[in-house]
Amino acid sequence: MLEQALAAAAAVDEARLWRRLEAMARIGAIPGNGVNRAALSAEDVEARALLLSWADARGYALGVDAIGNLFLRRAGTEPAAPPVLTGSHMDSQPKGGRFDGIYGVLAGFEALEAMDAAGVRTRRPIEVVAWTNEEGGRFPPCTMGSMVFAGARPLADFVDVRDNAGTRLGDALAHTLTQTRVSAPAAEQREFRTPVAAYVEVHIEQGPLLEANARTIGIVTGIQGMRWFDVAVAGESAHAGTAPVSLRRDALREAVAMIAALGELTADPTDVTRFTVGRLLVTPNSPNTVPSHVLFSVDIRHPDPATIARLGDAVEATCRSQARACTVTVTPTLHDAPTAFDASIAGLIEAASAALDLPAMRLPSGASHDAMYLNRVCPTGMIFVPCERGVSHNEAENATPSDLAAGTRVLAAALVELANR
Amino acid sequence: MLEQALAAAAAVDEARLWRRLEAMARIGAIPGNGVNRAALSAEDVEARALLLSWADARGYALGVDAIGNLFLRRAGTEPAAPPVLTGSHMDSQPKGGRFDGIYGVLAGFEALEAMDAAGVRTRRPIEVVAWTNEEGGRFPPCTMGSMVFAGARPLADFVDVRDNAGTRLGDALAHTLTQTRVSAPAAEQREFRTPVAAYVEVHIEQGPLLEANARTIGIVTGIQGMRWFDVAVAGESAHAGTAPVSLRRDALREAVAMIAALGELTADPTDVTRFTVGRLLVTPNSPNTVPSHVLFSVDIRHPDPATIARLGDAVEATCRSQARACTVTVTPTLHDAPTAFDASIAGLIEAASAALDLPAMRLPSGASHDAMYLNRVCPTGMIFVPCERGVSHNEAENATPSDLAAGTRVLAAALVELANR
Repeated sequence: MLEQALAAAAAVDEARLWRRLEAMARIGAIPGNGVNRAALSAEDVEARALLLSWADARGYALGVDAIGNLFLRRAGTEPAAPPVLTGSHMDSQPKGGRFDGIYGVLAGFEALEAMDAAGVRTRRPIEVVAWTNEEGGRFPPCTMGSMVFAGARPLADFVDVRDNAGTRLGDALAHTLTQTRVSAPAAEQREFRTPVAAYVEVHIEQGPLLEANARTIGIVTGIQGMRWFDVAVAGESAHAGTAPVSLRRDALREAVAMIAALGELTADPTDVTRFTVGRLLVTPNSPNTVPSHVLFSVDIRHPDPATIARLGDAVEATCRSQARACTVTVTPTLHDAPTAFDASIAGLIEAASAALDLPAMRLPSGASHDAMYLNRVCPTGMIFVPCERGVSHNEAENATPSDLAAGTRVLAAALVELANR
Repeated sequence: MLEQALAAAAAVDEARLWRRLEAMARIGAIPGNGVNRAALSAEDVEARALLLSWADARGYALGVDAIGNLFLRRAGTEPAAPPVLTGSHMDSQPKGGRFDGIYGVLAGFEALEAMDAAGVRTRRPIEVVAWTNEEGGRFPPCTMGSMVFAGARPLADFVDVRDNAGTRLGDALAHTLTQTRVSAPAAEQREFRTPVAAYVEVHIEQGPLLEANARTIGIVTGIQGMRWFDVAVAGESAHAGTAPVSLRRDALREAVAMIAALGELTADPTDVTRFTVGRLLVTPNSPNTVPSHVLFSVDIRHPDPATIARLGDAVEATCRSQARACTVTVTPTLHDAPTAFDASIAGLIEAASAALDLPAMRLPSGASHDAMYLNRVCPTGMIFVPCERGVSHNEAENATPSDLAAGTRVLAAALVELANR
């Protein structure tokens, strides 16, 4: 470990990090200590403005790309060298917690501030990035900002996605970009797929392993595979009192049969497979009208490439097998094979943890993260810290100030090392 | 048949009725020739204002009660005699048709105008009533205005009902009443449960029997029994990637099992039982969060009192049998035993049809109507006219101008008879 790396880690200010987390948690605060800060919402705009104001006060250069990803740059001695990136996202689930995503952004920011405090200079610039719409809770799919940045899908694929209220992503994005310009008139307009030397993301684990094993640092080995689908069932509305059941084209009854069949498809006695229908919209959604349309999401995950491929490939046929009088359209919206992170970055995180005397373990990620797409364009790794009982995507999500600071110290050390390579 | 009754019937103006129907169909018009005019919405307010302006121009006295039911009174020679009522509702399903409900209101209005044109005087006043929130599509349950008028349930039971957007019925009602005051400052404030001499409602059949039997007039014998429930399933939100399926409290997975079980409970080889889940709301409704809450409606109907009692009584246990890790709360929201309409009113409708040379038949109603609650407080009957293919609660709902006028003629004759008794 470079001396500078340890100096940066030592300069991490637990209280300052916690204050910033608390300030962000007030934006979109909901009962139960949670946060509702949907991507491209008024709350997201407010969080962006606050982050940009902090970065501006520090003198970091600001950048924004066409999907709204924000870049905060701490200069390096070789300005033209591809930067080291760190960060995560600021959007939340509708009933989300105060740490998911935002911790990774603020830990990155704290790491830069710690380098300032320690007088550390690095060869490469280091940038904190806040990826747009990681959750996909408002506009599916998830990890959209990093996916587009990495060139995996074009932005054009997503501009017509609509939220539950019917708002187009393209319109919400345009509004957010306009407001971002107001907050940061001098921000540089960034292109997608700019060269990146390395990416390290820190995040709460969102699972129970670190807590159960009494470790402070998780060295993330990879991310399980994931398939997402939108299933649209189209029938015909009819009067609930007069239409004979045998003649109905009831989109909800058939959707219910499809979800039950998908549950059987994904049933797993080893409890490794994850199957979730998290979103379901009924039209016209009136008690005495037979539903004409149902749209529901399918999220299936598994760490084994063959298994996730087999399950994902069976979704459409499983839904079709339950369609009786309705028509069904199954649209894949996300297809992520299992990810294995870069071994050298994992080794660096392990070395930093050891140098800082923090108990660490290697573990996979059940959740997907922006690091998944960065892994396609540069050496990438992730650092996890414990969260209480593994609860996440829930207002009750919790983590301790000292664990959050510890993860930030490991991050700061790793960034300084990477930025001097 | 009184000569006056036939004179009023003869004065019914098919073109005027059709023009008024077209004017109302423009309020809340949606693609496919349908109407979305939710109870207590801006569109409902607009429809009320238009109806009140027509009545005011005719010199009919106006009245409104605390739930917003509107009363348009054509004077009788004995002003203190309890009036004969006719009418229906002006609200629609979210994807509703242009005749359901509004036809009954405008047919009643046309009948009064026909009496004016024919110079008919009646002993009793005759009132056209527009019942608030018959559909229950926005604020369940249905037939709310007539239910409260008839004293079956107090208004206080419903003020806290919320629509899918979270708006309280009490707030939407207060706004509607304020706007109604603006449209009709001189309207009399009416009490609930005022004496009514008789009630006759005309409506499109919403079923296929008249068309199939080539009859113009349906003499409605009664309405099948109906039970409504709200089923609330409460679990816990969790991360779709990390939470093991075995440990989840997934409100949607369990709701799906409940709906499937209710489908088995109500399965009926004779195709008489009607079972509908028309409304289902998921919280937080995000693809990668395990749903914490689901609320769904249950609508079960059957003409046989013992069968509807048995099925309705089994709903809660059937839902509970499928609750695994979630809690379930089953709330009955409507309980209507099968209705048998008054024999003398049915006889009067039959006689009027015969006198007017209109082919008629007796038939039951699969749909519920405000007449169901009026039947509890006065002799009540209903007149049906054919609708195309029996399609209703659907934008494609259709009926012919001549059938609609025929039903109005029978109504006008029946009203004059009843108002002279």
